[in-house]
Order: sequence, then C-alpha cells, then structure tokens
Amino acid sequence: MKRAAVLGASGYTGRELQRLLARHSSLQLSLFASAREGAAVEPPDLESDPQVEALDWGRIAECDGVFLCTPHGASAPLARRCLELGTKVVDLSADFRCGDAAAEAGAVYGLTELERERLHGARLVANPGCYPTSILLALKPLLDAGLVERGETIVCDSKSGVSGAGKTPSARTLFGNSHENFLAYSVGNHRHQPEIRLHAGCERLVFVPHLLPLFRGILSTIYLAPAAGARAETLRACLRETYAGERFVRVFERGLPELRGVQNTNECHIAVGECGDRIVLVSVLDNLLKGASGQALQNMNLALGLDEADGLS
Amino acid sequence: MKRAAVLGASGYTGRELQRLLARHSSLQLSLFASAREGAAVEPPDLESDPQVEALDWGRIAECDGVFLCTPHGASAPLARRCLELGTKVVDLSADFRCGDAAAEAGAVYGLTELERERLHGARLVANPGCYPTSILLALKPLLDAGLVERGETIVCDSKSGVSGAGKTPSARTLFGNSHENFLAYSVGNHRHQPEIRLHAGCERLVFVPHLLPLFRGILSTIYLAPAAGARAETLRACLRETYAGERFVRVFERGLPELRGVQNTNECHIAVGECGDRIVLVSVLDNLLKGASGQALQNMNLALGLDEADGLS
Amino acid sequence: MKRAAVLGASGYTGRELQRLLARHSSLQLSLFASAREGAAVEPPDLESDPQVEALDWGRIAECDGVFLCTPHGASAPLARRCLELGTKVVDLSADFRCGDAAAEAGAVYGLTELERERLHGARLVANPGCYPTSILLALKPLLDAGLVERGETIVCDSKSGVSGAGKTPSARTLFGNSHENFLAYSVGNHRHQPEIRLHAGCERLVFVPHLLPLFRGILSTIYLAPAAGARAETLRACLRETYAGERFVRVFERGLPELRGVQNTNECHIAVGECGDRIVLVSVLDNLLKGASGQALQNMNLALGLDEADGLS
Amino acid sequence: MKRAAVLGASGYTGRELQRLLARHSSLQLSLFASAREGAAVEPPDLESDPQVEALDWGRIAECDGVFLCTPHGASAPLARRCLELGTKVVDLSADFRCGDAAAEAGAVYGLTELERERLHGARLVANPGCYPTSILLALKPLLDAGLVERGETIVCDSKSGVSGAGKTPSARTLFGNSHENFLAYSVGNHRHQPEIRLHAGCERLVFVPHLLPLFRGILSTIYLAPAAGARAETLRACLRETYAGERFVRVFERGLPELRGVQNTNECHIAVGECGDRIVLVSVLDNLLKGASGQALQNMNLALGLDEADGLS
Repeated sequence: MKRAAVLGASGYTGRELQRLLARHSSLQLSLFASAREGAAVEPPDLESDPQVEALDWGRIAECDGVFLCTPHGASAPLARRCLELGTKVVDLSADFRCGDAAAEAGAVYGLTELERERLHGARLVANPGCYPTSILLALKPLLDAGLVERGETIVCDSKSGVSGAGKTPSARTLFGNSHENFLAYSVGNHRHQPEIRLHAGCERLVFVPHLLPLFRGILSTIYLAPAAGARAETLRACLRETYAGERFVRVFERGLPELRGVQNTNECHIAVGECGDRIVLVSVLDNLLKGASGQALQNMNLALGLDEADGLS
Repeated sequence: MKRAAVLGASGYTGRELQRLLARHSSLQLSLFASAREGAAVEPPDLESDPQVEALDWGRIAECDGVFLCTPHGASAPLARRCLELGTKVVDLSADFRCGDAAAEAGAVYGLTELERERLHGARLVANPGCYPTSILLALKPLLDAGLVERGETIVCDSKSGVSGAGKTPSARTLFGNSHENFLAYSVGNHRHQPEIRLHAGCERLVFVPHLLPLFRGILSTIYLAPAAGARAETLRACLRETYAGERFVRVFERGLPELRGVQNTNECHIAVGECGDRIVLVSVLDNLLKGASGQALQNMNLALGLDEADGLS
Repeated sequence: MKRAAVLGASGYTGRELQRLLARHSSLQLSLFASAREGAAVEPPDLESDPQVEALDWGRIAECDGVFLCTPHGASAPLARRCLELGTKVVDLSADFRCGDAAAEAGAVYGLTELERERLHGARLVANPGCYPTSILLALKPLLDAGLVERGETIVCDSKSGVSGAGKTPSARTLFGNSHENFLAYSVGNHRHQPEIRLHAGCERLVFVPHLLPLFRGILSTIYLAPAAGARAETLRACLRETYAGERFVRVFERGLPELRGVQNTNECHIAVGECGDRIVLVSVLDNLLKGASGQALQNMNLALGLDEADGLS
Repeated sequence: MKRAAVLGASGYTGRELQRLLARHSSLQLSLFASAREGAAVEPPDLESDPQVEALDWGRIAECDGVFLCTPHGASAPLARRCLELGTKVVDLSADFRCGDAAAEAGAVYGLTELERERLHGARLVANPGCYPTSILLALKPLLDAGLVERGETIVCDSKSGVSGAGKTPSARTLFGNSHENFLAYSVGNHRHQPEIRLHAGCERLVFVPHLLPLFRGILSTIYLAPAAGARAETLRACLRETYAGERFVRVFERGLPELRGVQNTNECHIAVGECGDRIVLVSVLDNLLKGASGQALQNMNLALGLDEADGLS
C-alpha cells in the first residue's frame, strides 16, 4: 500500500481526492491537510466529512505522492519542498502548466490520454486546467492530425458549473447571484486561454468561459474550419481511433453528450457535428473529476507505477 | 380602450401576454382562448391563474388585435381568418418569418427597434424567434454599418432557459433531465439558423443552441471578425448610436450583462468585448418577453397606433 | 407627491422597495442610501441596478417616511433619529417587534390586514418577520375566534428560500451548500418563535425553520387541534370571512397553494386541510414582499394616509 | 457469483439498482428488463446508459433474486410468478407492505436495521416506502422503548426531491412547475400515512409530504411529546444505542443533518432536538437509495445470505 497526502484539503478538489482515495486499492490517504504553515485542524463542514489536519512535513516525507490542491502561486514552493523530500507531486494549480517555471522544474503536462508516455514515473505533473482538459481532449488530436484549417480562428465557447469558482463565499458563488442566472466572464483575459493555445500548439484560438447555474460539469462547444476535404466523419474517425480502448474518453458515434452523462465520473464525452462551414465539437466532463481530481489521480497512478484507473471506476 | 385576443392561451407566451395586458392602459384582453376549434374551457393551472376559454370567432371579430401564440403550422390559417375579420395580427410562430408565405401575406418581421417604420399600422407582424432576436439586435446594426468582415464565419453560440421548450411535459422538460444538466441540441439543423441568416443578410453564420437549467432567459455569445481597422470601441459606438433613446435595448459601456439583469423585463442588454482576433458580442434577454410576448406587445402597440411601451415598463 | 427614504439599501429588501416605489403613484424614492455613517456611494451590483448613496440626514429630514432595511440592533437608534426629524418610520428589523423597546417607542406591529386600525397614521411601525407573517395570517384569526384547542401544541413547520438569509456571502448562502440541498436550522432557538407566540397570544406553539434551494418564498405548514366540534370547513369559513375583500390575502376554497403562485407578488395564499385529528394550514408568501418589503409598503401607505395597495399591484 | 434480475428497469429505482450491482462482488445483474409482457427493448436515455431488455421468464428462472421496480398493483402478480420459479423477491412497490396481501404472502417488511432477524433468508420482502423509511428509522425505536407520549399526536412533516415522483413526464415533474417552486400535496390522504402508522404501531400520527425543487433526498421533521421525564438526551441515547455499529444509520451527537450529507449514499442521518414542549427529530436519506434501491439491495443481500453492505459502500 502506497501513501498519499492531499495539501489544500479544504477546497472542493481536495475533498474529491479524499473520496476517490477511499476506494483505491493500493494508494491510501495518509494526510489530508491544510497547506498553510501553522493552520489549525479544521472541523468538518458536515459531520460526515473528514477533518482537515494541520500541515506536517514529517508525515509528508513518509508519503509516496502529494496532491497539491493549493491556489495558484502557493503551489510552486510547496512542490519544490515535496520534491526535495522525494515524493512525487501532482499539482492542480496553474503554477507549472506554462512558461519558464514549468520548463525549469521539468513538469509534465498531465493531459493523461495524450501524454501518457511522459507521465510514467514522472516526478512532477502539472495537472491541466478544467477548461483546457475539456477543449484539448477534443481538439488536439485533430490539430495534430492536420485535420484543422489553421488559417481560420478556432472558437471555444465553454460553460462551467459553479464549483469551478471554488468554495470561498463571494458575490460570484452566492446562491442569489448564480442560481437562475447565467453569464460570460473574463472575455479576452482568462488564464486558461494561453494554456489552451500553448498545449494545442495553435495561437489562432479564442476562448470565452461562462458560469452555469449548476454545481459540477463543463461543456465546451468548439467551432473550427476543417482542413480541405475533411468532413465531420473524418474528424470523428480520427478521435475514435485516438481514444480506442481508453477507459475515460468516449467519442460518440451519434447523438450529443449531456453534462448528466459525466457528472460524478472521470469520463470525457465528445461528439462531432457539422454546422454550415464549421465543424462543431461538443465536449463534456466533470470539472472536479476529469477536469481536476480524477485526472490528477490518473496522473499520480502513472507516476507511481500503479494501475491508471485505480480509484476511478 | 382597444380590445385584444390571445389565441393559444395555455402556453407560456399566452400567459405572459395576459400578465402584460393587465397593466396596459389602452388595450384590454377581451378573449384568452385556446386556438383549437371545439376545445373546451380549461381550468387554470393554479387557482390564481386565469381560465383558458373556448375559441369564439364572434368575439374575435370584435377585437382590434389578435396575438397568435400557436404552434408553427397552426398559425397561418388562423392569421388569415383574423385578417379577413379585419383585426391586426401578431403571430408568435415561425409561419410568416421566412419564405414565400411571408412575402405573399405581406408580413412585417417584427424586430421592433430595427423595423419600426414598417411596423406602424402593420396588418400582419411575424414576431421574431427568441434566439434570432437576441442575435440580430446585437449583430445586424454592425453588419449594416459594414463593421463586420463578411469573409469570415460568424459564430453564434446561444443558451436558453427551459421555458423555451414550452409547457408540454416531455423528456426534455422533465425536471430530472434538465435540472443540474446542460446540453447542446439541434446542431446544424435548428429552424432559427435560416431565420437569422435571412434577416441578418449574411449566409456565413453558424448557430448552435443550448439548454440551460433555469426557467427564463437567453444569452447569446457572438464571435465575429471586425472589418479592417475596426476595434471593439468602433462597434460599441455603432450600437450605442443605433439604440440611443431606446427604452428596451441597452448597450453596456463596460462590464458584461447577466441574465438576472433582464429576467422579467422586456429589455435586451448587449456588451462588446475583444478576444484575440475576434470581437465578442454578449446579448441577453428574457426569451418569454423581449424574445416573445414583450416584443409582440411592442409590435401590436405600433400596429394599433398606441404607445409602443404601454404595458411593458 | 410624498417622499420616502430607504436606509440599508444594499440588501435584498432595500432593492425590492426601490422596485416597488418606482411604480408608486404618490410616493417617490428620494434617498436610497446605506445606513452606516460615513459609508461611501456603492456602485451597483449590475449596471442596471441603482447606486447606493451615502447617508444624508439633511435629505432624510425632507422625507415623509423612512424604511429601515437595517440589521437587528442597528435600526433602533436610526428609528429614533428619524422620528425626531418628524418622518414616519417602518422598520423591517426585529428591534420593535417584541419587548420593552416596542412598548416604550409606541411601535405598532404591522401585520397589516389584522392591525389596520392602528396603522392609520402610525408614527413607528414594526414590520413583522417573514416567518411570523406567513404563520400569523393563517393562524391568528382562528385563535381569536376560539376555533383552536389551546390545550394542544401547535406545530409550525416553515420552509424559506435562500434570500431570507440575506445577501452577504457566507457558508449558508454559498451556491454549493444551498443548491440541491435542504436542511432544518435553529431548532428551538429561532428569534421568530417568541415573536410568533407573542403576537398569536399563544405560548404552546413550536416553530422550526428550514432552508429551501430556491430564491424567494416561504411555505408554512401548521398543525393544530381544532376546538371541540370545529371541522376544516369551520376554520376555512372563519378565514374566508376575515379576509373577504382583502386584496392581498386569498383563502383557497379547494386545492393547495404553491410558492410559484405568490412569488413576485404581495399576496399570501392560505389553504385549510384535515389530516387525522389535526387541521393543517398551508400558508405561502414571497418572503421579500408580503414577508418584508411589500407589507412594509402597505404599512407606510397607511401611515402616510395613502392608498394601501399603491405600488403593490 | 449469484444472479439478479431487475424488472421495471426504465424508472429511477431500476437504474439505481443497475449502478449498485455494477459494484457488487457476489451478485451480478443478469437481466435488466421491462416488466410489461411483450415490451420491446428500449434504447438508453443517454448513450452511456444501459438498454432495457424485453421481459424473459426463462432468464428470470435462472436468477437467484428479483427486484421488482414496478408500479403499485403490477408487482403482486409478478412477485407470485417469481416465487413459483424459486427466486427471492424484493418488491419496491406498496403491494405487500400492508394489509391482507402482505400477510397471506408472508412478506417481511424490509426496514433493514429494525427487521434484520426476519430478513435473513426471507423469500419475499416488501421494501418500505421512502417516506416511511425516513420516519420509522427515527421514530420506531423511541416508540418501542416507551419514550414517546402516545396520548399526543405525532406530526411528521416530510419533504422529498422530485425523483420521488418518478420519471414519467407530467405537470408535477415539469421543470417549469417544480424548479424554484415548493408545495404540500396529498394532505390527509397519502398512501404512506397508513403504512407509517401500521409499522410504527401508532395510530395517532399525521403525515404531510411536500415536493422540493431538487432531485434526490428526503428530509422528515418529526414532532412528538416525550414520555414523562424523558429529555432529548434520553431519546438520543436510545437511538445511538439502537444503531451502534450500524453502517448505514448515523445518529448525530450534535448539529443537524443536511440532505447533501446523504445524497448518493445509502445512509440515514438522524438528529434529536428540543423545541418548546416537543422533541424534534430530523431524519434525512436519499429517497432513491436508502429510501428505495439501496435498502432493497441490503434486503436482497440478507435474503440471499450475502454481506448486507455489498454493493453499497
């Protein structure tokens, strides 16, 4: 039995990891802790929830892997200390996804199905953002196969549930402001746009996120011009081949995916449609699982040499 | 006091008209009826709702205007009979929005703020679809002003509340299927796509609708390439000028509109943003009011020579 | 045209009053302000919302009436200062509903339909709590008519939408904690229990509130033993007589009320049923209107000698 | 590996059983079928859902146990035929819960934790209703221990999510009628009231159900007069003793349970509070699991001699 720690346990992604690890056959949660030095033990939100323990580097040193569910900026120094202690690290923040920090630290971008080779035994994994996962799983194989006309702008219109905004009470997460409401936000300046462009290898791409009045799930609608001669069938076939045999990515032969088909699962469902001169990709996943903690566990499993799907089915 | 009839009263749009007319100073609801010959009086859904009466052509003949809240296909023959009786008709179905029927009948497309001239005294108004209204109010003035690069595809990604699917119980409108869910539908084949293209005067446009887990409201996110040299400011200025002095269309100087800002109102709120090489328009309205019954009343007011805003503020 | 001020404008009840007064024919909102000395002008939450101005006693002095939408404890000193300035005061907090403060200040408990006599021209009105209004309108006439067996405990099980918890972001009002959730709270120690007992004139009464995953509305289910010989019909007849001719209270002859029948209205709907040896009263209202701002406006109208329903229909 | 069939597979409870059995270590789902003779194979609702097969008595005969997820009235004849074929039967309908049919058939009432003795090896189990389970688990041990004053009426005020109304589209399950709404129904005549009274062994009990705008979960608030001398602590201690060591029933030492603590689990959480002269029990469970399919699997496990918790944790 290997041992894992979750740091930054009081948020939604930490809680999901706690649930997933409870079903894992070979990785147990040995520390579920705050990531702030000196933070006290937090009582659970519900009596049935686990307590959040104080940070304890001695116990971390005994772990095989550490999940960092910590805010952007807070993860990097924690990751470095964990690596010095010899544990594997899967970081759910944006700290190692792009830029020099990622390169210097030798972080592997953990888009599991498309980066599996490099994830086996990896020391540091930058877990992809929720929106980028939903978009890249659908789009990147098509770009890589040359099936997308790169001279035309790709439009990614994404919609996320409120859990994506985190657990801190704020105007955005207030019931009265989000329930029965819908809105676009961060037009032109969301941090996930450069992440998507970098890992898609395509700069001519725009991304606008929206906030749905539901708790969990992301649906991305992606509009692209196909390369000359390519039809929806061509692109669908490419995706079906890419994901043949995959346990967590499903490409629909017909019909359109819905959020309820993936909520509370680690799956991503993708459909390919046609509309005028555009191909329309619809991609859905659970932002807290395949978009965060589920994919993080896939990556940790690979980093530790365990069955990739353990704890996830 | 002029008199109006609502036919097809048992659906959501009929009910909205009944509420609006209760506050009208010079148009009273004199018949609130089913549109099916021989249909009996329907008891109200809630004790506080009005009853739906039986169809009565004698009473219709005494009306100045008739609202048709009837299904596509059912409206056309009813409209013709009403016109023969000498009443004005505002038809909320798609029967007179496009094609030969519209032309032959001399129907005016009732996008009020942009077609006001032709609506004064009009005999037959084809009330625009909910999605087309949200898109055309934002997009059409920009196309007409030459501010949109017509060589690049315009993407219209729209999201509607469940009331858009009507009041008939079905798998789509079942609480268990729509609550906490989100989905795209009718990709490439929604009836509103040709309506939008026709009235925008632009064929290179794609439209995908989605179903939100809330009751009322539409948000459309529109991605377009600006004409050479045009910036977001240019387009925003064009829209602000177009709608200067309008009571029901507001163009934001800054910030982004939210559905809750327009629910239960006859307003459309529009913002103009920039994202990469695309201009992003965000347009919101209440699909049952500005997207249906509210705009229908604006149009009837114009057709009957009344104050356009009566019953709507 | 008389003038009103709303103090404590940044919460839900202040906002409702602003909306109601916009439709009033003889009372205009001349100050919409924070109630904290020195608080700056607050930008609106949505671009279409009104700004919250700074407190200005000079402008308050020119008002005929002041609505206090301020927290419990903060209202009392503000009310005293307003009274010194000669304005009428309707206080939406609990400060003058019970106890010595209420008696000393000469506050009238503003359960409008049942206290109308004393409200005409009143200087200071203690606006009832939302739960007490829903319970007392149904229960008090029956107690006063001797139709309730006082030797048996009355059970009041109430359920409120999230807006009752106010607009401040907190764990309780967080979307992720309230959406798709339901809970009882404050069992045995809610401040409304003594208020209900006092104004019902009945100590043998228990009250438990619950939090519904919706925005506005309260439904109270009240279980009582009828006095010897009384049946549901007897009690229903008593209520129908009490509220005959009332514009805002409706007693159902058959069927059961639903929240959607009263949301966004100033109405209270009441039904009387029978279950085993108990009479069951079901009472619904909109907690922000008849349970707060709507009833407050009824009371202010009476205090100022205006039409009680102005601004409310 | 033992084999199970689910008849009446197209509803919510059948689907839950399918999910639970997928995780069972010693009972596999070998037939997931409609219960109507001659009904065809139904395509899945979502591509990821299982198909509903045609009824096949030959395959049923090879099963060890059959779950009947069929409507009231339809279950009884199916149960008799299954019993003749030698399979165990757990019936989720009301057909064998009360009355002569139950007695003649020798059905055991499957309130698992309180009837475990009789469930070991049982041939026919009448699975309790969702509301009765939530109420009886909290109330029955207290009645049996003489801690409840039987001369005073017990009030059971229950609130259920929309899934309790089933999957058939209807006015009640329409999104527009249930979302953002709340209502009481079946006052005085719900079929669960006699079931609760019978199995509680107490006639002086009233029950009113309500419909919550959420998908899954029941919360029951129960008001009772304690026997002379008994306090909340006494009753809480009784429940804690009753359920000591139980895996699926938790009695809170402090705090109040919330629906989100039990959704998607087979657990029932109970708290005991005090309010005036009444003890208040708050009991929550997931109506589709502990209130239906989860408890049904507990019962089938016992009937077949398997680990009671298999498939449920």
